[in-house]
Amino acid sequence: MSNRKHNFCAGPCTLPIGVLEEMRDEFLDYHGAGLSLIEMSHRAAEYDAVHQEARRLALEVFGAPEDFDVLFIQGGAILQFGMVAMNLLGPGRCAGYVNTGAWAKGAIADARHYGEIYTAWDGAADGYARTPDDSEIEVRDGTRYLHVTSNETIGGIRFPEFPVVDVPLVADVSSEMMARRIPWERFDLVYGGVQKNLGPAGMAMVFIRKSVATPANESIARYLRYDVHLDKESLFNTPPMFTIAMVGKVLKWMKARGGLDVIEREAAEKAAILYRRIDESEGFYSCPVDSASRSHMNVVFRLADEALERRFLAGAESADLLNLKGHRSVGGCRASIYNAMPRDGVEALADFMHRFRTGHR
Amino acid sequence: MSNRKHNFCAGPCTLPIGVLEEMRDEFLDYHGAGLSLIEMSHRAAEYDAVHQEARRLALEVFGAPEDFDVLFIQGGAILQFGMVAMNLLGPGRCAGYVNTGAWAKGAIADARHYGEIYTAWDGAADGYARTPDDSEIEVRDGTRYLHVTSNETIGGIRFPEFPVVDVPLVADVSSEMMARRIPWERFDLVYGGVQKNLGPAGMAMVFIRKSVATPANESIARYLRYDVHLDKESLFNTPPMFTIAMVGKVLKWMKARGGLDVIEREAAEKAAILYRRIDESEGFYSCPVDSASRSHMNVVFRLADEALERRFLAGAESADLLNLKGHRSVGGCRASIYNAMPRDGVEALADFMHRFRTGHR
Repeated sequence: MSNRKHNFCAGPCTLPIGVLEEMRDEFLDYHGAGLSLIEMSHRAAEYDAVHQEARRLALEVFGAPEDFDVLFIQGGAILQFGMVAMNLLGPGRCAGYVNTGAWAKGAIADARHYGEIYTAWDGAADGYARTPDDSEIEVRDGTRYLHVTSNETIGGIRFPEFPVVDVPLVADVSSEMMARRIPWERFDLVYGGVQKNLGPAGMAMVFIRKSVATPANESIARYLRYDVHLDKESLFNTPPMFTIAMVGKVLKWMKARGGLDVIEREAAEKAAILYRRIDESEGFYSCPVDSASRSHMNVVFRLADEALERRFLAGAESADLLNLKGHRSVGGCRASIYNAMPRDGVEALADFMHRFRTGHR
Repeated sequence: MSNRKHNFCAGPCTLPIGVLEEMRDEFLDYHGAGLSLIEMSHRAAEYDAVHQEARRLALEVFGAPEDFDVLFIQGGAILQFGMVAMNLLGPGRCAGYVNTGAWAKGAIADARHYGEIYTAWDGAADGYARTPDDSEIEVRDGTRYLHVTSNETIGGIRFPEFPVVDVPLVADVSSEMMARRIPWERFDLVYGGVQKNLGPAGMAMVFIRKSVATPANESIARYLRYDVHLDKESLFNTPPMFTIAMVGKVLKWMKARGGLDVIEREAAEKAAILYRRIDESEGFYSCPVDSASRSHMNVVFRLADEALERRFLAGAESADLLNLKGHRSVGGCRASIYNAMPRDGVEALADFMHRFRTGHR
């Protein structure tokens, strides 16, 4: 596609062009069935093959061990903010939340209705510019789990390593889903929306330690119970079939690329290209994030003032480099470079940053 | 598309071929933007136009008055089973539920966790073969709402008219969404999944009386609160953009066809073709449903025995008439004839029913 532009949107995000082409080509008539995949029964053999392959690939590509399963649940990561606490806590149980910024705050806001929540570390004093060391995290007695936000999409910070603590971890990995390896033995649950690294909007993937999805909490609606989705292999009700089919195709693309190890290394390299350009700019560009906590997915940076930032963004758009504006709550610039962003796109941006700086000295 | 077959699936369902073609043609490059619609930010101007048009058309085509709004919420009708009660009831408030079969039971099962629920009428004694008269429905003092299932997809029954009672109605119209007119003045809320008459799976539409969506219940997670979705025009989090875009296209198709009046009349006519074929068959085909309660969307029928039904289903499939098997919980046959099922398809089925009967006398 000659017209294709580089899309640095924070989510939804760019997808592999080959995957889009494949979906387009089979959209009207799925493998000769005489109808579209999205018109089929979710109990049809053709769809079931798609569904089960997506489940299998999700576990395989992410490297989840056998005592984990994956659930496809609608409502994005935001519905999980409540569901995690509904399912894992209940009256009288508590959980610690590491507050690293906007998304961690969202998780706390919803979880607090379904159990006792405390802040295990708060990044406010540092302007949410870093993640904590393990020694800074307070884990109280009786804590069911410690919740972390693997990567803050808005603030542009990440945990370089997941904490080592004495209680199970739960992580929102929305913007790092399938972009980094998970030390599964420390986790009970890993969740995130799929609309960044894996497909279109409309679904979260929940990787859950199977022993955790007990029917202990039978006082909540069935759609909100992990054990129900686990028992039905995410076919309790009609699933978001199009989204699942797209995710399956992206997972196949990831596997063909070399899997998670390659993807994770490429992500670090792509991010390094941009951070280098920022650090070499003698202050023309600046990154507000502590260097050890810099995100590999969302590279945030500022220019001298808002007027210059506006000129930068307009120039980038003219050069077919789209959606580099920072989140409306913080301003500045942000390049989101998820798995499907080719290295070419990152290099095109780095080149533009160099040209723009040279032109504005 | 020469290969296209007639798909009588109960859901997901057949969609207008023109809509599928339009989506395919713009799938890679949305109106020259250089990327797919599903790769765009949900805050992008292009997507916002799609989103707002879908909202506007949903209200217009369904004929909802100005004191109603429409919400796009993931999780299907099943998540609404719980959300209705979470939002409208709360401790100490009660609601009556009319139990007309499988889906009504589901609504009751989930609602009972979030308020006091009683059965206002139970169709069990009649084998769920009919809907009640108003005089049979018990509405207790202090009832917040009466919940009805407009059409039971599995049982194949519908309310020919919605009840007239002294409390607001709430209806699950999943299989009749945009297929019948709603007497809005009697309703507080009308909800349903979109995957039957309106688009692919992955979303419910909730038509809500705006005054009902109060922040009264601030003790529930934000994604589960109607007031949050209302306030944000269904952009509280990343919405299921593909599904919304498809629904918008189907609504445009409905409007061009003449709108709800025409669609409702066509539905009655299409259903009548099949019921006539059943009733004229001298018992070769039989419909277990009380004639006044027969569904216009899901025509259920039986043949003499299961062996004959298997031959019927196999023959139909050979004639490109797909998915006529009844729900696994009840067996038999079922023809689901949603809005996008052309009259041609229904006539092809009626012809096949005649030929099959003639061949098996």
